[in-house]
Amino acid sequence: MVATNASGMRAVKYGATRDYVLGLEVVLADGSVIHVGTNTIKNSSGYQLERLFVGSEGTLGIITEVTLKVAPKPKRSAMVLAAFDRLEDAGKCVSNLISVPLIPSATELMDDICIRAVNKAVKAGLPDVEAICMIEVDGEPDMVAKELKVVEEVARRSGASSVQVSDDSKQMAKWTSARKSVMSALSRLGDELVSVSLADDMAVPISKIPEAVVAFHRIAEENNVIVGTYGHAADGNLHTKMLLDPCSEDSWTRGERAVGQIFDAVISLGGTVTGEHGVGMSKAPYMMRERPDAWRTMLAIKKALDPQDILNPGKLMQWEGGIIRDLRYPCRDLCPR
Amino acid sequence: MVATNASGMRAVKYGATRDYVLGLEVVLADGSVIHVGTNTIKNSSGYQLERLFVGSEGTLGIITEVTLKVAPKPKRSAMVLAAFDRLEDAGKCVSNLISVPLIPSATELMDDICIRAVNKAVKAGLPDVEAICMIEVDGEPDMVAKELKVVEEVARRSGASSVQVSDDSKQMAKWTSARKSVMSALSRLGDELVSVSLADDMAVPISKIPEAVVAFHRIAEENNVIVGTYGHAADGNLHTKMLLDPCSEDSWTRGERAVGQIFDAVISLGGTVTGEHGVGMSKAPYMMRERPDAWRTMLAIKKALDPQDILNPGKLMQWEGGIIRDLRYPCRDLCPR
Repeated sequence: MVATNASGMRAVKYGATRDYVLGLEVVLADGSVIHVGTNTIKNSSGYQLERLFVGSEGTLGIITEVTLKVAPKPKRSAMVLAAFDRLEDAGKCVSNLISVPLIPSATELMDDICIRAVNKAVKAGLPDVEAICMIEVDGEPDMVAKELKVVEEVARRSGASSVQVSDDSKQMAKWTSARKSVMSALSRLGDELVSVSLADDMAVPISKIPEAVVAFHRIAEENNVIVGTYGHAADGNLHTKMLLDPCSEDSWTRGERAVGQIFDAVISLGGTVTGEHGVGMSKAPYMMRERPDAWRTMLAIKKALDPQDILNPGKLMQWEGGIIRDLRYPCRDLCPR
Repeated sequence: MVATNASGMRAVKYGATRDYVLGLEVVLADGSVIHVGTNTIKNSSGYQLERLFVGSEGTLGIITEVTLKVAPKPKRSAMVLAAFDRLEDAGKCVSNLISVPLIPSATELMDDICIRAVNKAVKAGLPDVEAICMIEVDGEPDMVAKELKVVEEVARRSGASSVQVSDDSKQMAKWTSARKSVMSALSRLGDELVSVSLADDMAVPISKIPEAVVAFHRIAEENNVIVGTYGHAADGNLHTKMLLDPCSEDSWTRGERAVGQIFDAVISLGGTVTGEHGVGMSKAPYMMRERPDAWRTMLAIKKALDPQDILNPGKLMQWEGGIIRDLRYPCRDLCPR
């Protein structure tokens, strides 16, 4: 969590890991143990090293203890499931919500590929449309009721063809579970295809979401690959999964090309190739493309703290591997033939 | 703001500068310009350099552009002014509020010295007690009304001898202005004394506030100096101002000794010598005492990014000056005699 600055569905309202880390105990490359950050909410005492170690992916030190800030648990939550005949309208619904301003606790977008996969694999019964948004609000009961009405109104104004509302925990769990099954469900969409975690964690400025999802679909079409797009739209974090034929070298080649184009599109929209999972190996070349001027500073810090390169060597900006050879979830051996 | 990770009264609910900085343009020591962070809410793309430059006090680079996250403006706010006959009870009121849990937008504590000074200098008409808490809540009107009732109840339960409530903007501005005049008002408390910014920006874990304020009063008494304590108690951030005789060498000596003892008390309570203003010069020796194991890592990063030490040289952990010689607001020449 801390080493990758991980986050998830609710970061739009509650922030990412970096926003909660107050202090860390870290073992450095030379074996010494240091304490960075403080036990206090406020801290202006020298470099904010605790925030530097957050997201450093084990390349600067090994985190052995974490002091976190906590947030009060919300008393109630409720959800709106809005269906859109046009993907762009779903994207606009997200921007319209944020500009109310209303900060939902989660806003999950799913395109038609994801909807179809989930309906087929887990009989989720989601509306058969081009895109849906699952919008969750939480907090004090009165506020939740008020915000629900606003969300419903914004969804309709943004062009939703249907809007369902629920504060029933079972119904909400069903919707959430449908959303969470996207990744595995995509693997069952085409009999001969597997779902591959390529280009799976981009983030763009919120206003660029409609443009981004349209670009992803165009890139999929041009490369003749199937791409499912979903994600935590309200904070600009989008995932794509590609459906590839694991037995076809050509399919892998087209997929890899599409990944590069998707990352290029994200970078040109002012986004980042990884919003919540980190760079690791496979995204290293793209991170360096995203940050042509900053990675040398990262490297200088890496050398200062780990001169012999013994901590997670070769990761982040130093990797020269291939995005397919080093897949996060390898699946080339799934070729059934 | 960014270079010191500044924050203020409302950080308890809204966070400090570090929580809002998404991206920065920075000029490095070698003259190159780099862009760190992203334009997105989420970012796990390599080292969180933008958070490292926050609070680096100009020693790692010169910040020339800032990309910030913004928060929606609250629709309404209201305040409770709770008076306490015992300073400790005021501290307990703060802990009790946080454990409701209720996150006020501000909680300003003032001890009897500060109250007396403000009542004398600006005729603020604050209750003549050992301590007061000004507690502000904000947000949606309904929620503000509800939270006000909870705050009032918690204040009474914590031993408040009187509780005033207001959502009138003029009354709230009057209370806030009284609080903001503490620093200058303290200079008028004793005819021959000046208010000195010594030990003015500590932060302790919230649960340690009662212990901290009691320790400050004991240290003042032992060193025969007058110390006013106030601050943003709900996030553990406490300020002290000392009243010294600018013409008396002995008074300065006692003041400097008291500062050291206050910082030692803060460190032993698990706190930090600077919550919101930064280390600069005068706090450098205390920061190194607070962080015996981490400042070498800071130094390694400083050397990696500024090998010739041309950026704000001697600041942060390298200063060997005296806390009186290098006062933030010099006032030794105010000796009227």
